[in-house]
Amino acid sequence: MQTPDQPLHDEAAAPAPATRARGRPRAFDREAALSKAMRLFWQKGYEATSLADLTTAMGIASPSLYAAFGSKEALFVEALNHYGATYAWGWKNFLDAPTARDAVKAWLMDSAAFLTGGVEDVPLGCMATLSVIGAAGHQELCEQTRTARAAPRAVVRKRLEQGAANGEIPASVDLDALARFVQIVQNGMSLHARDGASRAELEAAVQVAMRSWDALVEG
Amino acid sequence: MQTPDQPLHDEAAAPAPATRARGRPRAFDREAALSKAMRLFWQKGYEATSLADLTTAMGIASPSLYAAFGSKEALFVEALNHYGATYAWGWKNFLDAPTARDAVKAWLMDSAAFLTGGVEDVPLGCMATLSVIGAAGHQELCEQTRTARAAPRAVVRKRLEQGAANGEIPASVDLDALARFVQIVQNGMSLHARDGASRAELEAAVQVAMRSWDALVEG
Repeated sequence: MQTPDQPLHDEAAAPAPATRARGRPRAFDREAALSKAMRLFWQKGYEATSLADLTTAMGIASPSLYAAFGSKEALFVEALNHYGATYAWGWKNFLDAPTARDAVKAWLMDSAAFLTGGVEDVPLGCMATLSVIGAAGHQELCEQTRTARAAPRAVVRKRLEQGAANGEIPASVDLDALARFVQIVQNGMSLHARDGASRAELEAAVQVAMRSWDALVEG
Repeated sequence: MQTPDQPLHDEAAAPAPATRARGRPRAFDREAALSKAMRLFWQKGYEATSLADLTTAMGIASPSLYAAFGSKEALFVEALNHYGATYAWGWKNFLDAPTARDAVKAWLMDSAAFLTGGVEDVPLGCMATLSVIGAAGHQELCEQTRTARAAPRAVVRKRLEQGAANGEIPASVDLDALARFVQIVQNGMSLHARDGASRAELEAAVQVAMRSWDALVEG
């Protein structure tokens, strides 16, 4: 097993040789290769994805992989960031919604569609939620995925604060608990999507979850 | 890597030699070794748990491990069953509760305690929920964990049916959606527990979830 964070090769950092022909295409499309790695980690999880899986999917040999991405661990972190950047549009309906309730419902309903492959042909469930779970000697990696998983709760919490500020949510409501509840539901949906739940089944569960919102807000 | 489901040795099935001394202790305590394997898989997940991790934790050499348990995959399945049998008491309050509402709340509140290590010093989160997530070429294993994960929903569904039959839950309520919602919350709590949520934080989220129940039942 390669040592995390230790590049085995340093070709990427080396200056291009003077004899290199101008305009010569790189041996592989870095962005496309990263996207393939992202899908593989997403589908199989970090641990179950082997170097052979990666080189096959990415269409490059392992020295090129190490040269371009450093290590399996570093590649995963880059793939996770790529995931975040690629699917940032998933928050659009949330951010555009006029009320905090609409925002939360939009995020959960959009999640029901996205997590079950209803928006794009991608692996089921959320990459950040499902691809690194344990604490398997990859301390930094676990920390990174924990941070990635915590991020949506902060976004939801902020939107709830706005809802409380404009009187939509009574002051008596525990916003931390409500934000955590919303994220617990979204995370649980990832697992159910991976286990085969349909979009309609998740949407029905979201409808139940939104009853909590209404009960809380109506006091 | 060993081939799943193919025992490498068959010592366990072989008849004891006639010269074996009566009362001679087995080379290791099978139950204790299984319990150690369970905790390791639970903590690290199936993929990240190496044979070396297992033999170290179980205090046996790999030939003995294969002789007694067949394969890493077979050992995991046995460990998962051991988990189910060991923590079946987790359903006691659910089954003893007088109403469906009390039952569901008891399961979620007991989960908040158990999943955060508040009941016993065990790994955080649920082994069945967290230790096999992907579809990493272990088709049968994925199927087994999917089945283990689906089982609680059937138990909850049955209790909801009783609640509907005795008039506690109106006929208009979609019991499938309610059962799935309850399990989504419990599964999401596993992930949050693994990521460091406290028992109190999960209990607060359960209180929010129970508002859905009340809103549904009150129509």
